[in-house]
Amino acid sequence: MTLDETMLAIGEAARDGAGALRDASADRRTAAIRSMADAIRAHAAAILKANAADLAAATRHHDRLMLDEPRVEAIAAGLDQVAALPDPLGTEIARWQRPNGLDIARVRTPIGVIGMIYEARPNVTADAAAICVRSGNAVILRPGSDCFASSTAIHAALAQGLEQAGLPPSAVQIVPTADRAAVGALLSGLGGTLDLVIPRGGRSLVERVQAEARVPVLGHLEGVCHTYVHAAADPAMAAAIVANAKLRRVSICGATETLLIDRAALPMLAGIAEALDGCELRGDAEAAAIVPMLPAHEADWRTEYLAPVLSIRTVTDWKEAASHIARYGTGHTEAIVTQDAATAEAFLGQVDSAIVLWNASTQFADGGEFGFGAEIGIATGKLHARGPVGPEQLTSFKYVVRGAGQVRP
Amino acid sequence: MTLDETMLAIGEAARDGAGALRDASADRRTAAIRSMADAIRAHAAAILKANAADLAAATRHHDRLMLDEPRVEAIAAGLDQVAALPDPLGTEIARWQRPNGLDIARVRTPIGVIGMIYEARPNVTADAAAICVRSGNAVILRPGSDCFASSTAIHAALAQGLEQAGLPPSAVQIVPTADRAAVGALLSGLGGTLDLVIPRGGRSLVERVQAEARVPVLGHLEGVCHTYVHAAADPAMAAAIVANAKLRRVSICGATETLLIDRAALPMLAGIAEALDGCELRGDAEAAAIVPMLPAHEADWRTEYLAPVLSIRTVTDWKEAASHIARYGTGHTEAIVTQDAATAEAFLGQVDSAIVLWNASTQFADGGEFGFGAEIGIATGKLHARGPVGPEQLTSFKYVVRGAGQVRP
Repeated sequence: MTLDETMLAIGEAARDGAGALRDASADRRTAAIRSMADAIRAHAAAILKANAADLAAATRHHDRLMLDEPRVEAIAAGLDQVAALPDPLGTEIARWQRPNGLDIARVRTPIGVIGMIYEARPNVTADAAAICVRSGNAVILRPGSDCFASSTAIHAALAQGLEQAGLPPSAVQIVPTADRAAVGALLSGLGGTLDLVIPRGGRSLVERVQAEARVPVLGHLEGVCHTYVHAAADPAMAAAIVANAKLRRVSICGATETLLIDRAALPMLAGIAEALDGCELRGDAEAAAIVPMLPAHEADWRTEYLAPVLSIRTVTDWKEAASHIARYGTGHTEAIVTQDAATAEAFLGQVDSAIVLWNASTQFADGGEFGFGAEIGIATGKLHARGPVGPEQLTSFKYVVRGAGQVRP
Repeated sequence: MTLDETMLAIGEAARDGAGALRDASADRRTAAIRSMADAIRAHAAAILKANAADLAAATRHHDRLMLDEPRVEAIAAGLDQVAALPDPLGTEIARWQRPNGLDIARVRTPIGVIGMIYEARPNVTADAAAICVRSGNAVILRPGSDCFASSTAIHAALAQGLEQAGLPPSAVQIVPTADRAAVGALLSGLGGTLDLVIPRGGRSLVERVQAEARVPVLGHLEGVCHTYVHAAADPAMAAAIVANAKLRRVSICGATETLLIDRAALPMLAGIAEALDGCELRGDAEAAAIVPMLPAHEADWRTEYLAPVLSIRTVTDWKEAASHIARYGTGHTEAIVTQDAATAEAFLGQVDSAIVLWNASTQFADGGEFGFGAEIGIATGKLHARGPVGPEQLTSFKYVVRGAGQVRP
């Protein structure tokens, strides 16, 4: 078979897998996810061996790519958490009666077949599979070449788990090659079988997907996130939040990449820099006059460093901060630090990003931290889902109307 | 300016218009819609004159295209209704507290700039404009050549109304040419300024949009809707519902095009046919053995007649009816008529269309009938919105997180 034929066959099978998942009971979907978790634990040695091969071949992103025993256990535990989440399918989102007696219910349904295109993070293999099974959607996984061996090993475990629970392997499939042409096939929609593509990776991947896709895309653009320290910020809180937002984990999309600071708040900058011990700072002239640092260039404002590097820009007020964010941000997550409620509410209202925070770290941009139980990413588009994407966000709905013979006048 | 330059300029202006709409108060958006309604009434003569020109040139769809004084008044009254709807922006869809004290709110926001591509129905010009203003979105209207003069006349009234309320005309624009190349420009996304395209028209339009669009599409596919008469149907109710579903208004997308009837229910067919007085029937051999009718061919099962024509197919049970719908339907609206609750619930659960009804006419597929106040169409896709699309369905949301200095462990 050619690659195109292979991909079309995967699509056809996924359509059947979606039907099986949809028709399965919530209990069976739960059992399948638990059984997938058990299989991950049972396959830990094979997964670590495959990961060692990926790591040996990798030239970058080692932190995202690396698995060890605790991380494999964390993957399995993540599956257990998804198994424990309430099943969204069939739940009534709303129900109301019309004056003519019609009873209208809005009921959650699966979307169908989802294509997941990702890079560098082998754990996405398990997270995406579990969230799709929980929401009744078949998934076709397409890991990047950097995590291909690890992801294939994780998928082998997942497939065994599915089978043990009596669900077909067509419900969770993986593209059997790292050939980039497989991405093109997914973006073509696999002959109409694909309902949604979710890209998760760097800007070049997401931009390719958005340019080429013939199917709807739930975009996960990179996170060029900002923390804005307002003149009325509490200095200790500002230092703690900026340090956490930047350094807690530098490789996640919710990490702050740019600090915006009011001119009137510049006296706080020394304390903030002290809390950022070990972080490279790149700032404008006003910031550099307070704390010695490298100069920031135009490109810095657009860069998702994913590294212990922070760009710093001095602004006049919250409006200038919001303008900077509108111009350079990716619509992901932004925070304001201030004790002034009116300014905070103005900023929260004006800034049009998926997540806006007041006096909290941008690293809270996470489905688990939001209480969604799990996520497969943070959507930066404005359609269908925005922000953390968990099982509920991967459902559609239909209207079920119950009558007693009503006809329309 | 070339057409492409004109379209890009329209997109740029729409971005500004979206900002003005978003920053306007709910009261100002309400005032603008009321003022648009008044302007429609004041421009009635000009609108009817333009409509006469469209009608003289038209070779089809006269019922959809035709305006008279009552229909112009109905357009104005529709605007008044939208003005009276609650403003969705800024409303909290959900709000909850996390154990760490973070307060998370999900708040409605506009989508941005919407491109509306439609055919034959001049009233869509006003409906779409009002719903977009209500939801804070700028809109670029692209009527088909068949309703171009009527739509342009309606738009002139709307623009005057907007201006009187202090909102810029860039919030509601119309493409100044019936050249089909303008559709291509919209589908390209106008240099990134377009957030969503909504096609509303025949299959060829929607398929072109879905194939070419570089921006998200909220698809309004044609409605090949079904009414299924189960063996346990009440015969009088079945006749009344089928007749209403087919004949109340044959040119709307929720009109039933195919009657599926249980073999055991065929004795009801004579009574149903009597209620369908004046309707051409095309059936399979079993149906034609009860009531004389033309033979139905394969193409009939896929056809949205939009005319007093009904295809009739005999089925064994609800499962065969559901299979027929899955194969030939467009995912729009389907009804079951039965007194047997268990069969009804099985059908409602299995059939995956935007709207499924039990003992009610498919012609209830309408935003007004659902209580949404207004709609710009019935979405047949599964993403973002499904079924009637009113102001709420044209919003996005963001998460507003309020903290007290929380950092992530």
